[in-house]
Amino acid sequence: MSEPLTQDQAVIAEGDALPCKRDEDARERTQSSHRMLGFSDALLSIIATVMILPVTHTEISPEQQFDKSIQKLLATRIAVYLMTFLIVTVAWAAHTRLFQVVGKIDDTLALLNLACMMTITLLPYTFSLMVTFPDVPLGIFLFCVCVITIGAVQALIVSYAFHFPHLLSPQIQCSPQRALSRQRILCLVLRGPALCLVAAVFSLFFYPMSYLLMVTVIFLPHISKATSWCKDKFMGRMEPPDHSVQPFSFDLHAPLSKERVEAFSDGVYAIVATLLILDICEDNVPDPKDVQDKFHGSLVSALGAYGPQFLAYFGSFATVGLLWFAHHSLFLHVRKATQTMGLLNALSLAFVGGLPLAYQQTSAFARQPRDELERVRVSCAIIFLASIFQFAIWTAALLHQVETLQPAVRFGGQEHAFMFAKLALYPCASLLAFAATCLLSRFSTAIFHLMQISVPFAFLLLRLLVRLALAGLQVIRSLRSQHPQPDQGEPEAQSQLLPAPC
Amino acid sequence: MSEPLTQDQAVIAEGDALPCKRDEDARERTQSSHRMLGFSDALLSIIATVMILPVTHTEISPEQQFDKSIQKLLATRIAVYLMTFLIVTVAWAAHTRLFQVVGKIDDTLALLNLACMMTITLLPYTFSLMVTFPDVPLGIFLFCVCVITIGAVQALIVSYAFHFPHLLSPQIQCSPQRALSRQRILCLVLRGPALCLVAAVFSLFFYPMSYLLMVTVIFLPHISKATSWCKDKFMGRMEPPDHSVQPFSFDLHAPLSKERVEAFSDGVYAIVATLLILDICEDNVPDPKDVQDKFHGSLVSALGAYGPQFLAYFGSFATVGLLWFAHHSLFLHVRKATQTMGLLNALSLAFVGGLPLAYQQTSAFARQPRDELERVRVSCAIIFLASIFQFAIWTAALLHQVETLQPAVRFGGQEHAFMFAKLALYPCASLLAFAATCLLSRFSTAIFHLMQISVPFAFLLLRLLVRLALAGLQVIRSLRSQHPQPDQGEPEAQSQLLPAPC
Repeated sequence: MSEPLTQDQAVIAEGDALPCKRDEDARERTQSSHRMLGFSDALLSIIATVMILPVTHTEISPEQQFDKSIQKLLATRIAVYLMTFLIVTVAWAAHTRLFQVVGKIDDTLALLNLACMMTITLLPYTFSLMVTFPDVPLGIFLFCVCVITIGAVQALIVSYAFHFPHLLSPQIQCSPQRALSRQRILCLVLRGPALCLVAAVFSLFFYPMSYLLMVTVIFLPHISKATSWCKDKFMGRMEPPDHSVQPFSFDLHAPLSKERVEAFSDGVYAIVATLLILDICEDNVPDPKDVQDKFHGSLVSALGAYGPQFLAYFGSFATVGLLWFAHHSLFLHVRKATQTMGLLNALSLAFVGGLPLAYQQTSAFARQPRDELERVRVSCAIIFLASIFQFAIWTAALLHQVETLQPAVRFGGQEHAFMFAKLALYPCASLLAFAATCLLSRFSTAIFHLMQISVPFAFLLLRLLVRLALAGLQVIRSLRSQHPQPDQGEPEAQSQLLPAPC
Repeated sequence: MSEPLTQDQAVIAEGDALPCKRDEDARERTQSSHRMLGFSDALLSIIATVMILPVTHTEISPEQQFDKSIQKLLATRIAVYLMTFLIVTVAWAAHTRLFQVVGKIDDTLALLNLACMMTITLLPYTFSLMVTFPDVPLGIFLFCVCVITIGAVQALIVSYAFHFPHLLSPQIQCSPQRALSRQRILCLVLRGPALCLVAAVFSLFFYPMSYLLMVTVIFLPHISKATSWCKDKFMGRMEPPDHSVQPFSFDLHAPLSKERVEAFSDGVYAIVATLLILDICEDNVPDPKDVQDKFHGSLVSALGAYGPQFLAYFGSFATVGLLWFAHHSLFLHVRKATQTMGLLNALSLAFVGGLPLAYQQTSAFARQPRDELERVRVSCAIIFLASIFQFAIWTAALLHQVETLQPAVRFGGQEHAFMFAKLALYPCASLLAFAATCLLSRFSTAIFHLMQISVPFAFLLLRLLVRLALAGLQVIRSLRSQHPQPDQGEPEAQSQLLPAPC
């Protein structure tokens, strides 16, 4: 009862840390944008992912065969999911870049941001219309109206922030060419909506052109990057532009804030994990009548019938959790995310969002016992794609490691080796399971789920193996260099100097 | 193209800001726990809220009357939702307090935390079993098993962190009585699971006792607070204990981290906003056959039939968005959240989670035109309860304003007055709408949704009104004091000294 530091005191001290800054904020009525951005990230990641629910909820009754109409419905819904994911990711990236320019907010900006979010939530609906009625131009017209509205609201946010410059990020606030930046930023914000305006006009008399323009809008950042790369290549300028002396620019290639990439990814992983338990709670509570009739009132044996579904749940949760864990470990070493890494991350997350489909496929086997191996293969493919894109993020980061990685992992070292091992685990495991479905006729969903559950233990085993391998390398090295060092008791400190064993 | 500071440089400078700290982290292989906590908050808030989906998805076909079996099903599902929300909030608060003790994490702690999350996701299922089969003790037994598992994992986390003290928060790390704190924390972590062990044993032969013990576990923090309050009251110690000189304690009354309260609340608001659009996308895309048969191929007139639902969507999104906005404004002024504020926040969020039900009630009116006024009343009641508990948070914060509020709002001022006006808006508006349903027979769901949409404009109007009122007060004051000050041009600076006009 006499400890020197108290928690309350610490909290108070933290609260009073920047009193002059707080007072200034209060006078100008500005607020830190941190929480609003967190809320936007959560909202956007959930919207992007939740459209997998109509896919997983597509009812295929046991007697009904997997006929054409079901196939078409399923394909439609998967297309809506993927398009939604892609466009919401693009909208999220634009939002991130916008709020790298606007550093602080006030009440008006918070309300404008809510209006922007509401318009973004309508995008999935326009896709549903487009995919259900591909020959009616109304869907694409509504899509264009949404994009134009989002552009208008964002232009309003930019104009408002430049009108009250204390809302801008310090870099632009101090810049002597503020008017020029304002013009450039407005131009970039309105580029997509302007294309959509043209698309909306075309939708009234020649709608295929509208679809083409829509695809251009979605891939705009990547198209413009590819164009500038080709230009560099053919005009002879071989070396890349030196990023560190580039002036501040709000362009479509600017790196994304690492914090917001993490927040968006966390939202996707969290909603995927939750959709799994939602299915369990809706479908796997036995009907009291059934328990009375079929199981003679024994709830335990009624639940026993759901055993495979619970196994599937534990397996799927372990997979989602460990993919999050790998992503978390990966981004611990990342300092900033380039555009390529952002794209690879979006692709990885799109397949993570497909995991509820994988779960539904393998867990439904108990009810509809057919196509067992096909179901496992679909699951393996989804897990493989989700994890291989994570691996690609790491590879892309290594290509520009001075820019993208923390100094500690940049030149190899033990953490570097662990990272490779962690990221390679899921692609290898899913390939192995896929191969097993082709070679072993006795392979089943139950074995697959048990494999999923055992992966966390493989992680721990891996850690041990990498440590042993590095220690072995260490020994070989010290033998070769003929300088037996006295401090071999600290392999960690030395291993920082070792190259990665890959 | 010659601006002095570049974004890249700024990012690099930020990344290298704490190189020695980073290196130390790398050597000890610890990581900041920030992202893991954000992920846990997102996961827990979504689990708490998503159980409203079975409630809103309860199918009542048009010809079927609202009979006993439907009533029972609906009541069951609402009970599961509320119990889940309550228990997940309790688990979240315990998780928050645990990671106020454990300051940093490593890979093992991240994996243990995932195991903890997986067990928490199973709690809604045990509730579903309990509510569907109230007479079978299996549900409560499984619930107890889950709580015991969570307790065991948390005890493991505590033991691990005390075994590697660099993982502990600095306050405990420096404390001379570390062994004592370890014992106290373990005791608190295992208190609930111990009660559940007793409940599990009772469930085998006398299950009503188990339910009683379960309620005790859920309300443990509040029961123990009430007990200590009563003790103080009757033993004569009238003045409250001085919080600022209390030693560091991990107890059930310790204030919650403001950041995590915000993250948890954001998760709830984000998932609620997203569940609305999910319903729109699943239900409101017309069937191509219907469009051909009923609307002669005109998609526009087919969508026109869904007009009321879209109105309901915009109204509901505006309500969710503005409730978030009020919560955001409220917590800008809050420095830390006491236990009472945490409880009031949980109650407010539980009703926010009920908003998809309100939306479904009023939007379904177009399909099932009966009980129009009852549907509006249910919506008004949910909105009223969600907003009145927000108001209560502010009142609770004012009661201990030295501890809980930022200095700028503590002693009145303009922001203080805005805050009251903002928080009073929704309770007043929903009461008004409720009264209108009783008095005006012509009141309809359409009017109700238009009211919801108009509230954001009321916010802006309110701001103007409060500013005018304060300016009026200002004038009266300066006339009374007979000291006409020369700097009346800056009403903001002066209004900081005014008392709140409430």
